[in-house]
Amino acid sequence: MHPPGLIFCSHPVCYDRLGIGKRFMQAYHTLERRFARISRLDGALGILGWDKETTMPPGAAAERGEQIATLSVIRHELLCDAGTDALLHEAEADPGALGPWQAANLREMRRAHLHATAVPADLVEAASRAATACEVAWRQARADSDFPALLPHLEQVLATQRAIGAAKGDALGLSPYDALLDQYDPGLRQSVIDPVFASLRDGLPALLAEVVAHQAGLTSLPMPGPFPVDAQRRLGERLMQAVGFDRSRGRLDVSTHPFCGGANADVRITTRYDEADFSGALMGVLHETGHALYEQNRPADWLSQPVGQARGMTLHESQSLLIEMQACRSDAFLRFLAPLLRCAFGDHPAFAVANLRAHYRRVRPGLIRVDADEVTYPAHVLVRYEIERSLFAGNLSLRDLPGAFNDGMRALLGIDVPDDRRGCLQDIHWPAGLWGYFPTYTLGAMTAAQLFRSACDALPDLEDGLSRGDFAPLVGWLAENVHRRGSATSTAELLADATGTPLNASIYQAHLRRRYLGDAAG
Amino acid sequence: MHPPGLIFCSHPVCYDRLGIGKRFMQAYHTLERRFARISRLDGALGILGWDKETTMPPGAAAERGEQIATLSVIRHELLCDAGTDALLHEAEADPGALGPWQAANLREMRRAHLHATAVPADLVEAASRAATACEVAWRQARADSDFPALLPHLEQVLATQRAIGAAKGDALGLSPYDALLDQYDPGLRQSVIDPVFASLRDGLPALLAEVVAHQAGLTSLPMPGPFPVDAQRRLGERLMQAVGFDRSRGRLDVSTHPFCGGANADVRITTRYDEADFSGALMGVLHETGHALYEQNRPADWLSQPVGQARGMTLHESQSLLIEMQACRSDAFLRFLAPLLRCAFGDHPAFAVANLRAHYRRVRPGLIRVDADEVTYPAHVLVRYEIERSLFAGNLSLRDLPGAFNDGMRALLGIDVPDDRRGCLQDIHWPAGLWGYFPTYTLGAMTAAQLFRSACDALPDLEDGLSRGDFAPLVGWLAENVHRRGSATSTAELLADATGTPLNASIYQAHLRRRYLGDAAG
Repeated sequence: MHPPGLIFCSHPVCYDRLGIGKRFMQAYHTLERRFARISRLDGALGILGWDKETTMPPGAAAERGEQIATLSVIRHELLCDAGTDALLHEAEADPGALGPWQAANLREMRRAHLHATAVPADLVEAASRAATACEVAWRQARADSDFPALLPHLEQVLATQRAIGAAKGDALGLSPYDALLDQYDPGLRQSVIDPVFASLRDGLPALLAEVVAHQAGLTSLPMPGPFPVDAQRRLGERLMQAVGFDRSRGRLDVSTHPFCGGANADVRITTRYDEADFSGALMGVLHETGHALYEQNRPADWLSQPVGQARGMTLHESQSLLIEMQACRSDAFLRFLAPLLRCAFGDHPAFAVANLRAHYRRVRPGLIRVDADEVTYPAHVLVRYEIERSLFAGNLSLRDLPGAFNDGMRALLGIDVPDDRRGCLQDIHWPAGLWGYFPTYTLGAMTAAQLFRSACDALPDLEDGLSRGDFAPLVGWLAENVHRRGSATSTAELLADATGTPLNASIYQAHLRRRYLGDAAG
Repeated sequence: MHPPGLIFCSHPVCYDRLGIGKRFMQAYHTLERRFARISRLDGALGILGWDKETTMPPGAAAERGEQIATLSVIRHELLCDAGTDALLHEAEADPGALGPWQAANLREMRRAHLHATAVPADLVEAASRAATACEVAWRQARADSDFPALLPHLEQVLATQRAIGAAKGDALGLSPYDALLDQYDPGLRQSVIDPVFASLRDGLPALLAEVVAHQAGLTSLPMPGPFPVDAQRRLGERLMQAVGFDRSRGRLDVSTHPFCGGANADVRITTRYDEADFSGALMGVLHETGHALYEQNRPADWLSQPVGQARGMTLHESQSLLIEMQACRSDAFLRFLAPLLRCAFGDHPAFAVANLRAHYRRVRPGLIRVDADEVTYPAHVLVRYEIERSLFAGNLSLRDLPGAFNDGMRALLGIDVPDDRRGCLQDIHWPAGLWGYFPTYTLGAMTAAQLFRSACDALPDLEDGLSRGDFAPLVGWLAENVHRRGSATSTAELLADATGTPLNASIYQAHLRRRYLGDAAG
């Protein structure tokens, strides 16, 4: 990014064309300054949001809400105002005047502007109000396992999400559902998801049955506790450092719901500690560290521009799962981890590598998505994705949601849902208006497997390095092939460039077979 | 404050006059919403500033600077734009339509607008650039005790401060120096300061000589250490609570330079701990708690409006010094403190009340202002104020500053300044462009004494309460007579209302005589 005061950048292409492209370039550079200002508001919002979850005294909640709303409205006004549209038109008139990153940046500016302006203000407000009311109703309905109490609120949310999908679809030339998907993962389309999810779904029940049979009779020693919070924190920091988190540009703190937030040069991850079980915080820190690496390694020259942002939720989730699931549950990493656990919590046979392997790889169909293991997690997402599509398209009535949910769980995981609290009421996404979000979890897991496979193929010593806690080759490969590409390409293009093939369910399935069935051919 | 969406407020006066005053009221309420937005930007800036000093990783400094600059520019634009001026004119056209708080609020809005718009943008920039360069030069010049190296930079700062004073003076109808004073303490004028400082100055050398003679031969046991940080923190929190700090709307944290910051419902104070000496952190926490009480007790209905702000630096400093110096170095409070020190740090004869009294009341002329005791501190300020006036008026050349400073120190404190590092180079204020700021320190100390005297007169049990750690009567009196008045009146009016008399040096002198010479007649 160029300093705000600079009118002309130093890219050779700009100087070459200064005579003929000057007006377009001026418009482009004015846009860069405007989007840098938006990025600084985003950074301020990131710090205020972090503070709200980690530090803020309780009595400040209402005022913090007003501060966040004020900055968000100012941000929205900057992005949407007529001046931005006029500048975009002017800059777009001579795209040849721009270098490739500038052209991609201009495309991302237009994308952000289209998404922000597509929805009329009264619909934004109606959707926000419906989601807020529905979230409140959902907390009570979940506690009471009372789906009928949620139904009228959820109908309002679905109606406003359909209207948003239609409005954004018109602006972007997409189907309404694709327009929602595009909010979370630019370029993601139902036509991309359906075949890979179908392929995943085909093999899932059989694979699950095989793994459960394979693990029958497998026992493991329980982890000895308690695990003092300080020792857990020190271990987490030691592992963050090994993975490559830059402490000079980020922090680890505590919050009720772990997240990765903050600002460009200030990436803040959180965890929560349980003295009875270190595993949640440990794997949580590694997961958030994966997110943080993506943020810390974004292209340095473009940090405050749209093209310098992470590409979307699928790739972001792929980076957290690549670190947590692919790298840090590998045999190699568990060999590195075992002595660190003994050092942190005392010598105990439960910390033997074989026992850690059994502990971290237990597969068991369960009711709750967020507690699911690597093999059963995709089933939870498939059930939700299929229902969400049907609800959105009007092929399924909301009143039939519980039945459809329970049927799906039985078909894919072979378990009966005893009540809606542990069934279709367990997640906040639909009440909160996050329609089109669920698929990114499993697309992220698949992408992680595919990227890790390619990294291992490219770097034969990679897994050996992990056994010594050396993540540098892996993270260097990720930085080059994912992080430093920002939003310069689509997710699909980035994945094809990095792995030589489009998103492919069989690579993920092979990973599961290899890890859970010892199937080397996988 | 009214919610941003509300056009008409519920004050009876508004409804009464709705027919005739409607347009004025609409303009007024539009202004309220605009200033509420400014207040939320101020709150965001307060949290970002707090985070910068307490929490931020070092690598984020440059980006944080950009975030703060961006919010500051947006704030400045909101305050200065032509729409604000037009609305002010419209609302001012029928001042009778407003209730008294609304009228005062409109006056404060105009004041903020005048201060912000008086200085042309290029002068704001030149002053900021001069101060930034001079601060850098000052750090080196102080380290090297090299005044000539600072001189050219300081000349630039003085020139821009003169130009700002002239521009603001034109806009406000004030002399240039009064315009600078008015930035830090609205309504403060040189004509107010000069007689009280003259009166203070007259008695000071003699009083100091008397106190030094009185304390000759006085010995005290040194405080036993070390004092673990955790115990110091718990003691500080215990005292904050006793004084009346509301933890649900504020925090105590650690920073290199202690301050009171944050936002309306989120007042954040900081301290720094020294394991060898608990006194600095302890009295620092009490000092910042005094500032925080002012912030926490501002008028609840007007928190986000100009009239709801604290009145200025003199009153703010008076509140911190009233708690730290007047209340918490009183005999009564030391009786409350002694057992708490034993409880925190173990039983020791040094924690006897008489020894604490000797420890906290040692008077000794010294070179450094921030280390000065209550009796000698005013001398440091008087020296600076007299020099500042002369420099600003052109009666003293900057190159003669070191000599004038050393002469002043000899005249008022009877000590020789061995080098400029410990002389005129010790403070950041002049290099940083804070001209007109120094007098508020001593005006604050005098105001604190005057307010405390009146509170004691009004509440005969007040000092008895302090000996039990009961601050409620004192803080209730302060809330009613100072905090909850916000900026509805001038500092002078507030002080006269609360104490029945204008600012009066003899009350402060009587306090010093009573405390340091045991002179009951005062």
